[in-house]
Amino acid sequence: MSFYSNLKERFPGSLRLVILLLQVVPISICIGSAVALFLWLLDKATTTRQQFPWLLFLLPLGGLLIHFLYKSIGKNAEKGNNLLIEEIHEPSAGIPKRMAPLVLFSTIVTHLFGGSAGREGTAVQMGGSISAAIAGWFRTTDKDSLQILLTAGIAAGFGAVFGTPVTGAIFAMEVLTIGRIRYNALLPCIFAAIIANYTCSVWGIHHTQYHILFKNTLQYFSADSFQLLWKIVVSAIAFGLAAFLFADLTSFLKKTFQRFIKIDWFIPVVGAIIIIVLTYILGTDDYLGLGVTSPNPNGVSIVNAFNEGGATYFSWFWKLLFTAITLSSGFKGGEVTPLFFIGAALGNTLAILFHAPVDLFAALGFIAVFAAATNTPIACTIMGVELFGGEHILFFALACFISYFFSGHSGIYSSQKIGVAKL
Amino acid sequence: MSFYSNLKERFPGSLRLVILLLQVVPISICIGSAVALFLWLLDKATTTRQQFPWLLFLLPLGGLLIHFLYKSIGKNAEKGNNLLIEEIHEPSAGIPKRMAPLVLFSTIVTHLFGGSAGREGTAVQMGGSISAAIAGWFRTTDKDSLQILLTAGIAAGFGAVFGTPVTGAIFAMEVLTIGRIRYNALLPCIFAAIIANYTCSVWGIHHTQYHILFKNTLQYFSADSFQLLWKIVVSAIAFGLAAFLFADLTSFLKKTFQRFIKIDWFIPVVGAIIIIVLTYILGTDDYLGLGVTSPNPNGVSIVNAFNEGGATYFSWFWKLLFTAITLSSGFKGGEVTPLFFIGAALGNTLAILFHAPVDLFAALGFIAVFAAATNTPIACTIMGVELFGGEHILFFALACFISYFFSGHSGIYSSQKIGVAKL
Repeated sequence: MSFYSNLKERFPGSLRLVILLLQVVPISICIGSAVALFLWLLDKATTTRQQFPWLLFLLPLGGLLIHFLYKSIGKNAEKGNNLLIEEIHEPSAGIPKRMAPLVLFSTIVTHLFGGSAGREGTAVQMGGSISAAIAGWFRTTDKDSLQILLTAGIAAGFGAVFGTPVTGAIFAMEVLTIGRIRYNALLPCIFAAIIANYTCSVWGIHHTQYHILFKNTLQYFSADSFQLLWKIVVSAIAFGLAAFLFADLTSFLKKTFQRFIKIDWFIPVVGAIIIIVLTYILGTDDYLGLGVTSPNPNGVSIVNAFNEGGATYFSWFWKLLFTAITLSSGFKGGEVTPLFFIGAALGNTLAILFHAPVDLFAALGFIAVFAAATNTPIACTIMGVELFGGEHILFFALACFISYFFSGHSGIYSSQKIGVAKL
Repeated sequence: MSFYSNLKERFPGSLRLVILLLQVVPISICIGSAVALFLWLLDKATTTRQQFPWLLFLLPLGGLLIHFLYKSIGKNAEKGNNLLIEEIHEPSAGIPKRMAPLVLFSTIVTHLFGGSAGREGTAVQMGGSISAAIAGWFRTTDKDSLQILLTAGIAAGFGAVFGTPVTGAIFAMEVLTIGRIRYNALLPCIFAAIIANYTCSVWGIHHTQYHILFKNTLQYFSADSFQLLWKIVVSAIAFGLAAFLFADLTSFLKKTFQRFIKIDWFIPVVGAIIIIVLTYILGTDDYLGLGVTSPNPNGVSIVNAFNEGGATYFSWFWKLLFTAITLSSGFKGGEVTPLFFIGAALGNTLAILFHAPVDLFAALGFIAVFAAATNTPIACTIMGVELFGGEHILFFALACFISYFFSGHSGIYSSQKIGVAKL
């Protein structure tokens, strides 16, 4: 019988797993603490900006600061999330330790002065950088172990920053390659995400709570249940196309800036000035910063998009434009929270157009635009469950799978390999 | 700008997707209807056996009937789920149409006379067989399309038989290869599973409802939250080892039967006699049939395992033994529902030993033993959400990921390829 021989055969692998998991513990505690510090600073930066709206006029200066910081001491850290993905696929120069403090500082500067950006990039880059540093102290040199620890670092950063550990674990493995998940880091990722998320909670960080009041009572074939499904299918296509537009517009703007502005430090200044001008044309600061909440109770924000009247017809487009300009001109922070905003606002608008439940469609947009832009449909389905509860998992999966297909092969991470083409 | 050229580039693929999705509609309606018929017949067979316990004595005859049926007209259908997996990996002789009626009839015979078996194998094989037949009528001949339609057939069968469409879609893609999901059939699978599940509902089929009353209030680091996590980790290792034991015992018994019993039709007769003898030694018929419910209110069953006192210390082992004997001696039906039973009963026992919430641990065992035996940790995490709600998704993921690692590379489907070794 193969029972005992099997056990023996698996023993060397198990020993390596135990060593990896032991390294994951300090790595994740550090990442969870760094994310807690980051979220605390981010909150201070956001409330300070909302209190002193004139800070927006310093955005060009902030852009200059970030530009010269990365240029002088940034090494290859400028490449951000793409550097992490590349290093996991094919380890070369490694992840510089300075990536963590640099991206933390730059993101806070971006948000303090009103750039429209996210926070997952920061969390993920801090995760990767801390993971690489600690793995170095443990003298972990074999390629496979390093790849697994870097992946676990992404899982820890993502899981902690959004309070969604299972999503973090799946996202870290799913984001590397389009159309495929490999389970080589399954256990290190889930342990890292759980520990980092717990650590972050211990520091007193709370995450935004969302609620969907809509109850699905459509169990059987009926005109109503079909109508809801069709509305979700059509909306999911729109979510995918919005992600496609965002990814393409960001890379188009980046190229355009570089082509027409020959003095490189002038690019963030121009980006910042466009943001300031647009803010004054639209007469609202709702599209600056993270956008999770708005100081104005009737303002447009992610949270308000879950209620009727919480977004205008083109809120999704304005947030898309503000974020594309912010990130393509060199500011830092990541794309995910703005993608949540774009999706929730677009879901709100589509729900009003289709006479569909607003909270459900805001939630679908929230996860589906993100799924499409990062090519992570399964992680985003699970994010739907972790943020909004399990009742609507079927709709979450349907929306994410469809939008994933409609975003094309671009996405916001150019270093993703294509594992399986989207047909 | 690449917007329009990208759209054009993707157009041929999209056209093929539309054609595939159009084929998925009739395929899934047929599969959903076949599964509804199957579940209805299964219910009749189970209640009839419970009403007339002497039917158990006909189990040897039932085994003979199934044996000669497959031997005379079965072609390669005997290989069951493994044939499906092989045909998806490398199309050769194709799936015979007769697989659907054969496995349906044989499973009903198995359950009518008290064999301990499941139902997912039957649903999945009907799904694959119907899918292959209809694809043939549509003259679909290219290899990729056939593979996708077969995968969608598995998704439809699985989604409909358990009422869990998202799980069905992920399971179909995840089960093919250990350690990897490829997204080539993402949209066809989710559409197939949704349509088949709806069709099955329209025929009036209801699925068992499970509830976990335990509420997790352990948000932060505390002695209690750590204790719960450790109990889950240790239990998950036990769930993985139970799955390992089941897979190895089944294949060991199969080889032993073939080695010591030279007259092949005598194997099911011997298997049936052992089942009858064991039933009388244990003095209970709780380990016969599906085991979802027991006619005795204090009996051992999947549903009762969610309550304290709903399983004995060794219930999990008896069900494991009964099922291994039933399936290794040639009866039909599949392994999944017995795996649910084994897991829920083992979870119940571990919860009592550990002073942990019984309903939560029964649910964890339910999904984690199955995850480990079929090497589908992500599908089973999602099954936890679809069956028990999203509140405990973190525990579901933790249990499934850990148990997956501890089941080794065997599993119950010998045709699974190893994509990524479990370290």
